Amino acid sequence: SAKRLNSLDPNGTVFAEYTALANKHKAVNLGQGFPTLHVADFIRKNAAEAIAHESLGHQYTRSEGHVKLVNALAKYYSPKIGRELNPLNEIMTTVGASEAIYSTIQALVDPDDEVILMQPYYDSYPASISLAGGKPVIVSLKPKANGVSSSDWRLDIAELKKAITSKTKIIMINNPNNPIGKVWSRDELMQVADIAKEHDLLVIADEVYETLVYSDSESPMIKFASLPDMYERTITIGSMGKMFGVTGWKIGWVIAPPEITRASWLVHQFLPFSVVTPLQEAGANSLEMAMTNGYFEDTTKTYQKLRDKLMKTLNDVGFHPMKPDGGYFIIANIAPFKVQEDFSAYLTKTVGVTSIPMRAFYQKNSHGEVQHYVRFAFCKDEATLDEAGKRLTEYF
Amino acid sequence: SAKRLNSLDPNGTVFAEYTALANKHKAVNLGQGFPTLHVADFIRKNAAEAIAHESLGHQYTRSEGHVKLVNALAKYYSPKIGRELNPLNEIMTTVGASEAIYSTIQALVDPDDEVILMQPYYDSYPASISLAGGKPVIVSLKPKANGVSSSDWRLDIAELKKAITSKTKIIMINNPNNPIGKVWSRDELMQVADIAKEHDLLVIADEVYETLVYSDSESPMIKFASLPDMYERTITIGSMGKMFGVTGWKIGWVIAPPEITRASWLVHQFLPFSVVTPLQEAGANSLEMAMTNGYFEDTTKTYQKLRDKLMKTLNDVGFHPMKPDGGYFIIANIAPFKVQEDFSAYLTKTVGVTSIPMRAFYQKNSHGEVQHYVRFAFCKDEATLDEAGKRLTEYF
Ligand SMILES: CSCCC(=O)C(=O)O
Ligand SMILES: CSCCC(=O)C(=O)O
Repeated sequence: SAKRLNSLDPNGTVFAEYTALANKHKAVNLGQGFPTLHVADFIRKNAAEAIAHESLGHQYTRSEGHVKLVNALAKYYSPKIGRELNPLNEIMTTVGASEAIYSTIQALVDPDDEVILMQPYYDSYPASISLAGGKPVIVSLKPKANGVSSSDWRLDIAELKKAITSKTKIIMINNPNNPIGKVWSRDELMQVADIAKEHDLLVIADEVYETLVYSDSESPMIKFASLPDMYERTITIGSMGKMFGVTGWKIGWVIAPPEITRASWLVHQFLPFSVVTPLQEAGANSLEMAMTNGYFEDTTKTYQKLRDKLMKTLNDVGFHPMKPDGGYFIIANIAPFKVQEDFSAYLTKTVGVTSIPMRAFYQKNSHGEVQHYVRFAFCKDEATLDEAGKRLTEYF
Repeated sequence: SAKRLNSLDPNGTVFAEYTALANKHKAVNLGQGFPTLHVADFIRKNAAEAIAHESLGHQYTRSEGHVKLVNALAKYYSPKIGRELNPLNEIMTTVGASEAIYSTIQALVDPDDEVILMQPYYDSYPASISLAGGKPVIVSLKPKANGVSSSDWRLDIAELKKAITSKTKIIMINNPNNPIGKVWSRDELMQVADIAKEHDLLVIADEVYETLVYSDSESPMIKFASLPDMYERTITIGSMGKMFGVTGWKIGWVIAPPEITRASWLVHQFLPFSVVTPLQEAGANSLEMAMTNGYFEDTTKTYQKLRDKLMKTLNDVGFHPMKPDGGYFIIANIAPFKVQEDFSAYLTKTVGVTSIPMRAFYQKNSHGEVQHYVRFAFCKDEATLDEAGKRLTEYF
């Protein structure tokens, strides 16, 4: 096989690994971030209608994105970003956020170019950079001593500045962050933006959890592309899977100035060519409705309750969870429990509850500080969280 | 943008270009190969049922492929390939055949590796090779003088032998071929197989049109992987879009020995991660049914009639079409009609019928011999072909 594969973990992505392990041991899967909640009725109705089409609704649609969907996205994002987006050349739909990240990096990163990642990061970032021959350069978010919430994780701006070289091309930022749930404050974002401007860098802002920022968050959700003079150098990544709790639809998007969107499309056209037509149609209609039917507000409330429920369970069993301001996940310090093997594997096999080990979000051997953390997903129905709670409580 | 984009046509893929042109001029689109026929009722019913699921049916499925679908594919392909395929490690589902080709080439081709393509070829082949830093090496299929059918196009085996160097890694073969519709004979395939064995090469066999081989074809469909001792070095590419006339579902697959499937998956996991869940479910159920309900036989008959209908129209207007033995397309020699600009563009704008110029399937400036050919798709309902016929007949 090709040498570029040597840069990848031969075990494959942690999410496939732990979901397989969960299935094998019939564990409650709080590992991989897929919701088990019922998909909202209006979304399923829109999907049923799109699927009922007799012919063209099942064929290739526009390679750059189904017209109805890019139109709906333009309507949704223009006020948030603070400029009138052109749906036909500033928005491209992709096969989930994963393909958005992959195609954009293939389009922008030459061999030996450097891309700055903040760890803990989503595992497809370094993989996509390495597959393009680029070099991931890592800076670390660090938790305050005795931190209790995701906002206690901070970036040392001096560390970011030091990481920049003449080869740096892109900074990647994830807001809200996966796995820690940090929602970045305006001050923090502005510091990153200033550095990007000073060094003429692009910023990939992975904002797939943007609709899930909880009412007690220290900061509101601020779109990176809305910061002064940042639109020109920002690539926003979004996800219908996260927006509507339908991760299996595999629809995401890139929002960026026309030249960048075009470059990503040049890769995308030969990769999937186009994205699943009937579900883009359903997603477009759902987004039009969600802009007025209160879906986002209701869903955020629902998730906040689920977060609080899992926080309580993890606290009760002595795991020291940190409250996330946004997203699907809670990280918890399990230091009090000394087990020999990987704690997530142990928990799956012995207790029947699956989490993700924190090392998955770190460069190899660089997660010393957080080696006692694991990540739990709370995007699960109450019964699932109850069952996990029962198993954890009985064991610990 | 990254240098790898310099290897791509800055205009983008011909299919997006001509479908946009067709839409602009309200032309009958016989360019891009998407069916306009009604999707079969049992397939739409299966899709409706999968879409009706309330929760997990809308979430990520197994990254290597939805279990039901890889099981159905193993059942379908094992007898055709002549060995018991392991659905869990010899079959991977992908975002259409495009992603199958792309991920496989990323997994196998290092910079400067050579991959042999036979032109006319599908345009994503050279693009995928170039995006991996590899070098497409071209050999040409050539039509016999006064040839009238796709089987009159032959590969000069001496030319293939001459193209092989110490850097050659893969031969790509497309059977039935797009654009010409050639169905390869056993003798021809064996010659390619012998060369692959002699030089220890892999073969990517793009067989997306395998279910559409017409009753008057000179050769039956022979799967490359079924040739003696070829399974080990063959990667078979298939497509649900083509199999069930649902190109917008974006589901394809790779069938190959475990190590190769695994290598393709290492790329795939960071590219889309997984393929659309509800439509993989629908596709699995549809394939189970199609194996016994006569769907493939019926569909082949329907397409054969449509082929004959378009052949007649093209003959009647003096275009000299060549009868294809398989697939969606007819190529036609339009030499009698001298027009200044690109004939396909001219036909779209002036006559209101869209085709694809043959140059799209050739290396730049190497299509001299076939510069008077254009490709028409006949995977269209009768009314569409009638309207195209009317417009062509009125004009010519
Ligand atoms: C693509 S599988 C991973 C899903 C996810 O976003 C997560 O669990 O972090
Ligand atoms: C992916 S768009 C091209 C569709 C097709 O197979 C063709 O028209 O040749």
